[in-house]
Amino acid sequence: MKQVKVLAFDVFGTVVDWHSSIKREVEAMNLDVDSDVFALAWRAGYAPAMKRVMSGELGWTKIDDLHRIILDEILQEFGVNHLSEVQKVELNLAWHSLDPWDDAVEGLTRLKSHYTICTLSNGNIGLLTNMAKRARLPWDCILSAEVFKAYKPHPDTYLGVARTFDLQPEEVMLVAAHHNDLAAARECGLKTAYIERPIEYGANHIKDVSPVAENDFHASSFIDLAEQLG
Amino acid sequence: MKQVKVLAFDVFGTVVDWHSSIKREVEAMNLDVDSDVFALAWRAGYAPAMKRVMSGELGWTKIDDLHRIILDEILQEFGVNHLSEVQKVELNLAWHSLDPWDDAVEGLTRLKSHYTICTLSNGNIGLLTNMAKRARLPWDCILSAEVFKAYKPHPDTYLGVARTFDLQPEEVMLVAAHHNDLAAARECGLKTAYIERPIEYGANHIKDVSPVAENDFHASSFIDLAEQLG
Repeated sequence: MKQVKVLAFDVFGTVVDWHSSIKREVEAMNLDVDSDVFALAWRAGYAPAMKRVMSGELGWTKIDDLHRIILDEILQEFGVNHLSEVQKVELNLAWHSLDPWDDAVEGLTRLKSHYTICTLSNGNIGLLTNMAKRARLPWDCILSAEVFKAYKPHPDTYLGVARTFDLQPEEVMLVAAHHNDLAAARECGLKTAYIERPIEYGANHIKDVSPVAENDFHASSFIDLAEQLG
Repeated sequence: MKQVKVLAFDVFGTVVDWHSSIKREVEAMNLDVDSDVFALAWRAGYAPAMKRVMSGELGWTKIDDLHRIILDEILQEFGVNHLSEVQKVELNLAWHSLDPWDDAVEGLTRLKSHYTICTLSNGNIGLLTNMAKRARLPWDCILSAEVFKAYKPHPDTYLGVARTFDLQPEEVMLVAAHHNDLAAARECGLKTAYIERPIEYGANHIKDVSPVAENDFHASSFIDLAEQLG
């Protein structure tokens, strides 16, 4: 893998543990809902919301604003009617304060010594920057759907990383905990590395993390990936 | 200045010493030209090239490509005809390897502990990332004209920083060694800090670094700025 120069990371679920972090914030606000189910519902609204943007139904809308649209819907579904506007704004910012997985900072730091490491997330730049600052994620560069004005899995995002660094697609490797994201990157010619995050959806909803043969790497953590890459 | 949350830095001349770095690269390639004058000529082509983009004469063109257009012109002017394409590509990449001013890394590191620090440069994202990695500039985020598809002093760049972080313009401060850049930022409502870089154009061309009353801060270095900000 000598030719890979840039490692681009999916963020939600791959670098940070959104489920337990959102659950924690929901509990801190005493919403009187099942915080596990509430976190899953909020996240479940994410892909359909991005589809509304990519279909043209909505103009370009950043994730902060999509998160807020979904939040307003699920607060109603869950019968939560007592939050003030200030509280809703605060709750929506929970996505800026997601905790990294235990191996993330050490693994990224090791990978950074041999590669340029950047985000390639559907999260907006401000969200990713605030998250990185709080969690001490040592990115060389924060790239986002917001830079390319397209959400993954649109090819403009994967190829956008290569173009940003004047590289061929095969000189970029996407690192993600989601096989569909990796498959779309591979279609564009990128290398791919899968990271096992079995409790991405919480300890009560164990995710199948079986390998897919098409990925160039399959690792249990960023530290494992750093060791495999040498 | 409690309300300022983001410090956005001009880069060429403010964070890095383009003149001596370009001079060094030109000398390393044995071009048989006056490296001081060559460096100044290359830089002098920069503003007119960006104007060609902003006037619509050229479509969106990143600085790497503008630097190359200018390079081809000045190589001809200086009578340099022996460079291969590979050598021209390499020379153009000199702008990715500019050395930071002596106070830059320490000053940025101190400022980073109290503020979000980002670039706001006309340089493209890849250039700024490569530069930061080499020089160990500890940016929280790399913002560029390339993100906003407009070159400074267009308001979309200054206001783009505020929008990126969901802030009011006065919560962002531009830090720069150029009064015209700061004046344009101030027009958009940003706070401004001037940094003295008297030898930006080389020791033979000392720059007037007199204060302008309209700036919120005037500092001799990033360390001085950090001390003034507390």
